[in-house]
Amino acid sequence: MTDTAANGTAANGTATAGTATAGMPAIRSRMSPNLELNQLVEQRRAAGEPLVHLGFGESRLPPFAPLVERVAAGARQTAYGPVAGDLVVRSAGAGYFTRRRLPTEPDQVVVAPGSKPLLMALDLVVPGDVLLPRPAWNTYAPQAALAGKRALAVEIPEECGGVPDPGALRERIRAARAAGHDPRILVLTLPDNPTGTLAPPRLVRELCAIAEQEDLLIVSDEIYRDVMHDPATPYLSPAEVAPRRTVVTSGLSKSLAVGGWRIGIARFPDGPWGEAIRAGVLSAASEIWSTLARPMQEAAAYAFAEPPEIRERLAASARLHGTVAREVHRICVAAGARCRPPVGAFYVYPDFEPLREELAAKQSVTDSPSLARSLLDRFGVVVLGGHLLGDDEGALRFKAATSMLYGATAEEQQQSLDAEDPLALPHVRAPLDRIEEGLMGILG
Amino acid sequence: MTDTAANGTAANGTATAGTATAGMPAIRSRMSPNLELNQLVEQRRAAGEPLVHLGFGESRLPPFAPLVERVAAGARQTAYGPVAGDLVVRSAGAGYFTRRRLPTEPDQVVVAPGSKPLLMALDLVVPGDVLLPRPAWNTYAPQAALAGKRALAVEIPEECGGVPDPGALRERIRAARAAGHDPRILVLTLPDNPTGTLAPPRLVRELCAIAEQEDLLIVSDEIYRDVMHDPATPYLSPAEVAPRRTVVTSGLSKSLAVGGWRIGIARFPDGPWGEAIRAGVLSAASEIWSTLARPMQEAAAYAFAEPPEIRERLAASARLHGTVAREVHRICVAAGARCRPPVGAFYVYPDFEPLREELAAKQSVTDSPSLARSLLDRFGVVVLGGHLLGDDEGALRFKAATSMLYGATAEEQQQSLDAEDPLALPHVRAPLDRIEEGLMGILG
Repeated sequence: MTDTAANGTAANGTATAGTATAGMPAIRSRMSPNLELNQLVEQRRAAGEPLVHLGFGESRLPPFAPLVERVAAGARQTAYGPVAGDLVVRSAGAGYFTRRRLPTEPDQVVVAPGSKPLLMALDLVVPGDVLLPRPAWNTYAPQAALAGKRALAVEIPEECGGVPDPGALRERIRAARAAGHDPRILVLTLPDNPTGTLAPPRLVRELCAIAEQEDLLIVSDEIYRDVMHDPATPYLSPAEVAPRRTVVTSGLSKSLAVGGWRIGIARFPDGPWGEAIRAGVLSAASEIWSTLARPMQEAAAYAFAEPPEIRERLAASARLHGTVAREVHRICVAAGARCRPPVGAFYVYPDFEPLREELAAKQSVTDSPSLARSLLDRFGVVVLGGHLLGDDEGALRFKAATSMLYGATAEEQQQSLDAEDPLALPHVRAPLDRIEEGLMGILG
Repeated sequence: MTDTAANGTAANGTATAGTATAGMPAIRSRMSPNLELNQLVEQRRAAGEPLVHLGFGESRLPPFAPLVERVAAGARQTAYGPVAGDLVVRSAGAGYFTRRRLPTEPDQVVVAPGSKPLLMALDLVVPGDVLLPRPAWNTYAPQAALAGKRALAVEIPEECGGVPDPGALRERIRAARAAGHDPRILVLTLPDNPTGTLAPPRLVRELCAIAEQEDLLIVSDEIYRDVMHDPATPYLSPAEVAPRRTVVTSGLSKSLAVGGWRIGIARFPDGPWGEAIRAGVLSAASEIWSTLARPMQEAAAYAFAEPPEIRERLAASARLHGTVAREVHRICVAAGARCRPPVGAFYVYPDFEPLREELAAKQSVTDSPSLARSLLDRFGVVVLGGHLLGDDEGALRFKAATSMLYGATAEEQQQSLDAEDPLALPHVRAPLDRIEEGLMGILG
């Protein structure tokens, strides 16, 4: 694994002391930066600092009672069970995908404690290196490194993130092969974390054509699919275009605000190759996590069946996420940043390049670490610097997660969810004003 | 990873078909044999076959109501939270270990969805190859292979399993280094799966001394520690002897019969090296599973605090496991096998070597696969052949898990747990008679 540790994506720490460590090599020890930042914020808040936390993609909404009841009802299920998940949850998952123009049998579905372990298992069992958009969610590259793979990042197009620019992708594959690397897996995020944008159908088709030509497996991370702000936005999954070579991953953490429950799902391609990949993932699953905890399977079976109250909850949540993300986008643009308008998820990804000279002159802000640090130290606004997502450290970009601006209590969060105009609620307006103050004031 | 795939421990399957698979290398796809066997048995039983299932180490006891209530109470916890687990569950875990002569701070503890992901993370972040007892639980070697490591199996002593024979271990390390390998991690199982035995303190001390001399990390899998049949049996953890180089893993699946809940725990050494390994495991955790599901943390916090009703439940369960395991041991010996007497967990590991000639002559049984197949086909008794645990395929050994013999319903299982003499219960006696018939009749 030495090779991958050298490619900049593996996170290594060194620790040696005393005789017990003599001769022991360094241990990998860099925590996923968003989770690390979240822990730091919790500590500083506990110490009394009133931070505005835009550094963690948690949908902070109150527990949805019918879902909570299902976990309680499932708590009497204590036995192991099939690695892939019970038939009832796999059937519900198959229905979920089928309703999204992806006809699916229960045998194509696997549930797991989050989509992370499913993505990790794919890296462990499918040979070859991984092509990623740049920037991308901060877990893809470290997972590739843990699996002994190279993570090959490719710039995103002007119009949207979550996918590589097609021309740049072709060039990167060519160059990687010339260098003896073996790009085999293409990760797409639809809609995207961190940009909050969605690749349009034309672009999805073009990338699927490249995957066919270059014999790539597509891993389509669709965990924010039910957080599209406008249900009328055209959504094309790569699994519709390249059904034999696309694995879709998703989960309930984002759409139903249950990140702490760790419920993920994957849909594997129909046909022998899809079956082989699914068998491989189940093999890894059986050795790494056995199965999704049964009480969580009960909740997942209920949610993926999408009864009316779940559909309403999904719609209300997506509406709120969209309203607040668009407001943060407006603030970023008003402050002078370039920023793609968000259409899904709960992120914006502004670029302060237009203000580079002023930022350098007045604040000594010259790159994404110093930009993020300045926002934190001067305004108490926590963001995730673009460099932590594989982007150029020299660029003036950051990810702002807007999903924790709905109030400090379950009551406030419920009001935000129910409000006609959540932006008018004082507990929503206050952190937005703090953000506005920070971004407008960063030159002051 | 090609190297490790060749060492016999990586499980590879091949699948190719159609144009989509042109040029795609084989996918790892062998499922963990015990989970695979379990699914097979469920299917055959569903089809009406009355099998006696000794092939899966699930403690089949009814849900314990106070524990179930805790999951329900925790279901309103929907947020992520610290990767290592909330302070409350880590504090409870620290208390659990401290009461077992392992003084522990909460910051030394990590909880996870099972002990499997913790063991996997150790393999991913600690460099070097893995030394295992032979036979061993069927997940250690495939995990090593997934992490790109070699699994180096070392024969167990005559007196007990779960640990390598010290002399053989020294020789194996020497030979491995001479061959250019890098043994760095020593896995011990106390008490043992599959033999149901416990390494005595003298042997633990000897192995710890070797670990010190050879600079090995000890991974002490103590998931069956609370399933010691007699609480008076002397138990020495390697973490007492070599505190700076021993990671202890455990969980609730076995002792409290909640395998389907996936609750695992690890205790890391005090000191800089232990902190570095824990940081490494947290790094992997943050990328692979994020955290243990919060409702499960609530149950874990309750259980690890060990209030009186939990201690009673643990004691009653251990008593039942011991009674039934000893009875199966008696049957094996009566049938002519050699077999170490079980003192912990719920396994026996008989060796039919004394009957080799008769088995070959009368039943064409010549190795562990044909022995297991003969028991299944002729008597409907399902066991796990020793070859699936890394043992010699030519040996006449198998693992019999005795923890699913307590009845088909929760009511029967509860009776077994409450009974003065569970062996006198018809629903316990019947499968034992089937086993006796099978083992006594195998020569017939």
